[in-house]
Amino acid sequence: MRKKNLQPLSEKSGVKNHALEEKSLSRRKLLGGVALAGGAALLSGCSGEKEDCAGGPAVLGKKRQLKMVTSWPKNFPGLGTGVERLARRIEALSDGSITVKVYAAGELVGALGGFDAVSQGKADMYHAAEYYWQGKSPAFNFFAAVPMGMTAAEMNAWVRFGGGQELWDELSASFGIKPFLAGNTGVQMGGWFKKDISSVEDFQGLRIRMPGLGGEVMKRLGATPVTKQGGEIFQALSQGNIDASEWIGPWNDLAFGFHTIVKNYYYPGIHEPGSSLSLGLNKDIWEDMTPREQAIISAATAAENDIMFAEFNANNARALDTLVNEHGVKLKKFSDDILTQLGRLSAEVLADAARTDDMTKRVFDSFSKARHEGIRWGAISEQAFAHARSLVDN
Amino acid sequence: MRKKNLQPLSEKSGVKNHALEEKSLSRRKLLGGVALAGGAALLSGCSGEKEDCAGGPAVLGKKRQLKMVTSWPKNFPGLGTGVERLARRIEALSDGSITVKVYAAGELVGALGGFDAVSQGKADMYHAAEYYWQGKSPAFNFFAAVPMGMTAAEMNAWVRFGGGQELWDELSASFGIKPFLAGNTGVQMGGWFKKDISSVEDFQGLRIRMPGLGGEVMKRLGATPVTKQGGEIFQALSQGNIDASEWIGPWNDLAFGFHTIVKNYYYPGIHEPGSSLSLGLNKDIWEDMTPREQAIISAATAAENDIMFAEFNANNARALDTLVNEHGVKLKKFSDDILTQLGRLSAEVLADAARTDDMTKRVFDSFSKARHEGIRWGAISEQAFAHARSLVDN
Repeated sequence: MRKKNLQPLSEKSGVKNHALEEKSLSRRKLLGGVALAGGAALLSGCSGEKEDCAGGPAVLGKKRQLKMVTSWPKNFPGLGTGVERLARRIEALSDGSITVKVYAAGELVGALGGFDAVSQGKADMYHAAEYYWQGKSPAFNFFAAVPMGMTAAEMNAWVRFGGGQELWDELSASFGIKPFLAGNTGVQMGGWFKKDISSVEDFQGLRIRMPGLGGEVMKRLGATPVTKQGGEIFQALSQGNIDASEWIGPWNDLAFGFHTIVKNYYYPGIHEPGSSLSLGLNKDIWEDMTPREQAIISAATAAENDIMFAEFNANNARALDTLVNEHGVKLKKFSDDILTQLGRLSAEVLADAARTDDMTKRVFDSFSKARHEGIRWGAISEQAFAHARSLVDN
Repeated sequence: MRKKNLQPLSEKSGVKNHALEEKSLSRRKLLGGVALAGGAALLSGCSGEKEDCAGGPAVLGKKRQLKMVTSWPKNFPGLGTGVERLARRIEALSDGSITVKVYAAGELVGALGGFDAVSQGKADMYHAAEYYWQGKSPAFNFFAAVPMGMTAAEMNAWVRFGGGQELWDELSASFGIKPFLAGNTGVQMGGWFKKDISSVEDFQGLRIRMPGLGGEVMKRLGATPVTKQGGEIFQALSQGNIDASEWIGPWNDLAFGFHTIVKNYYYPGIHEPGSSLSLGLNKDIWEDMTPREQAIISAATAAENDIMFAEFNANNARALDTLVNEHGVKLKKFSDDILTQLGRLSAEVLADAARTDDMTKRVFDSFSKARHEGIRWGAISEQAFAHARSLVDN
C-alpha cells in the first residue's frame, strides 16, 4: 500500500509542497487548533522506511481523509443514499488513497451548516442544495432551483455548456469553495393540500410549508409560507398547524407517509422544477490535489449527477403508482389560472433577487438566457415528442 | 512510474493471473497473430529491476493500452468530441496506467464494425449506438432508441434502476461484451423535407433517408426508406436522389449544411426520442480489470453520459436559433393525424421485433414497462411543468 501514488508526489514535490504547506498554515491560522482535527487529514503513510519517506515534504498528500458533511439524514432515499454512492465511488477510483467519511445532517454540523463548515475548513466538502446558502448571496438559488426556472437537463446544459460553471466558480471562490453538480431530484411535486385548490383565491391565508423563493412566491399570492424541516412536516400537517406542504416527489413523500393524513396531491411543482444538488469542496484542498485526484472528484460528481436523477425518475414513477393505486391519493392539477399567476409572481421574485447585487444580476442574466434557449429547444424536442407519444399511449 | 499500482497487482497475482494468461491465450488462438497487435496490449513496465518484477506474471496488467473504435468521424461534434473527452477522462483517472487510443470510423474498422471488432478482440472497446448491431439481435435496438420509445431520462432510469442493465449485460455477454451507457443525443429532429408534409398521404412514395426501425415505420406508412451514411446525405438531397432525410438535431444538421438546400425542418422526431450511445468493452478485459480499473470505466462512462447530453442540449438550442433566425429555416410540426399514425405503426414495428426471439421479447417487456411508468411520471412532472412555464414565457 505504501508505494502507491509515489510518482505524483515526486512530480509535485518541487513545485507545490511549499504552497501546500502555506495553505495548511493559513487554514490553521484561520481555525486555530480546529484545522488539523477537522480539515483534510494528510496522512504520510510513511513509517520510517527510507525509500518512501525520502524528500520530506513529498510524503504529504499521499493519503487523504475527506470529511463530507451533508444536508440529509443518513441513507435518506435518493439524497442520503446518493451521497454514500458518491463517497464510495471516490474511494474506489482512488484505490484507497482518498477516504471519504460521510456525516449525516446534525452529526458534525446541522443540515444548513455545510457551507460554513467547508468554507472555514471544519469539513472538507458538503453535499447539499445551493439554495440553502441564499443568505450568503441570492445568486446561490440559481445553482439549485428557482420557481419556474429550469429542468434538470436545462440546468446541466447551462452549468456545463452555457457559462454557469464559470459564474458558480467565481461566486463560490469568494467563500473558498469549488462547486460541482452532483445530483438532481427532477421536477418536484406541487405538494399535499388538505383542501381543494381551484382558484388563486384558495391560497389566501393558506399556511403552506415551502422554503426559499418558492415560499416568497406563495407569500405574494396571499399564502403564509412556513418553514419546517422535513422531519417536522408530518406532525405539523396532522396536528393542523399547516394546511399544505410540498416536500420532494412521490418516492420521498410516500416514505414520509403524508398520504395517510392528506389525499390531495397537486402537480406540477413550479417552485423546484429540477433541483440540482451539489458537492462543494474546500478550494484549498481542490488546488492541492494532483491532476488525478481532481479527475476523481470531477468524474465521481458527474457520474452521480447522472445516476441520482435516474434513480429519482425510476422510483418516483413507481411510488406514484403506489400512492394512487394502493393508497387512494388523488392527483390534481393546478389550473392554468393558478399556474399563470404563479408564473408572473415567480418572474417578479427572480427579478427582485437579481437586483440584490451585481453577482446575482450576472448569474440571473446568464441563467435567463439559457432558460430561454432551453424553453425553445424543449418545446420542439422533448415536449413535442411527449405530445406525439400521448396521442397513442397514455 | 514503475511503482504505481503495485499493490493491486500483488493482490490479484495469486488468484487471477493464471486466468488472465488463459484468456490472453484464448484470444490469441481466436485471432491468430492479430491478437497481440490489436488487443489490449499488456505492458509490463518492468525493466528488469527485481523489486518490481518479482513474481513473474504479476507484472502483467500493470499498464493497459486500450483501442477504442468508434462509429463517428474524428471530432464529429457531440459524438466524436464526446468520445475524445471520455478517452482522456479514463486516462486522467488512471494517472497514465491506462491509455486509450481512439479510432474514428474507418480507421481500424468501419463505422458499423465496432461490435465484431470488440467481440473478436481486434479492438478493446467501441463507442457507438446499439441499434447498429440489430443484425445480431433486434434486442439491441432497445438500448439505443426505438420509434416512439423513451427519452434520455427515461432510458437512464430504465437501464440503471429498471432492470435494463441486467438484460443488456446478458444480451451482450453472449457476444463477449460488457456494455455501458456513455452518452445521449436527446430527441432527434423529424428531418428535412423538400415538400410540405401535411397529411399521411404525403408520405406515399417519399424517398426518405431513415435507417433502422424508424425506416421500417416509414415503409409501413408508404414511404421508401433509404440508407445513407451521414456524409452522403447532402449530395443525395441536393441531387434529388432522396426527398427527405433525418440526421440528428440542429447542432449536427447545421454543420452539414442541409439548410442550404432544404428549408422545411420538421419536428418532433419520433424515430429516435433519446438516442443512447454506449461503450462496449471486451468482456475478458473487463473481468481482468482490478476493482479500481473497473471503477474508472464505470465512472468515466456515467460522467460522459451526463455531459454529452448536456452538450447536445446546449448546442442544439443555439443552433436552432441560428437555423431559424439566420438561415430562414421553417420549423414545421407534424400534424396530430400523422403523429397518431406514426404511433400506431411504431407499436406494430416494436411488437413484431419482440417476436423475433425470447431475449428480444424479454427486453421489449422490460422496456415497455419502464416506458409506461415514465410516461405517467413525465406527464405530471416535466411536461406539466413545461406547460405551466409556457403560460407566461415562450
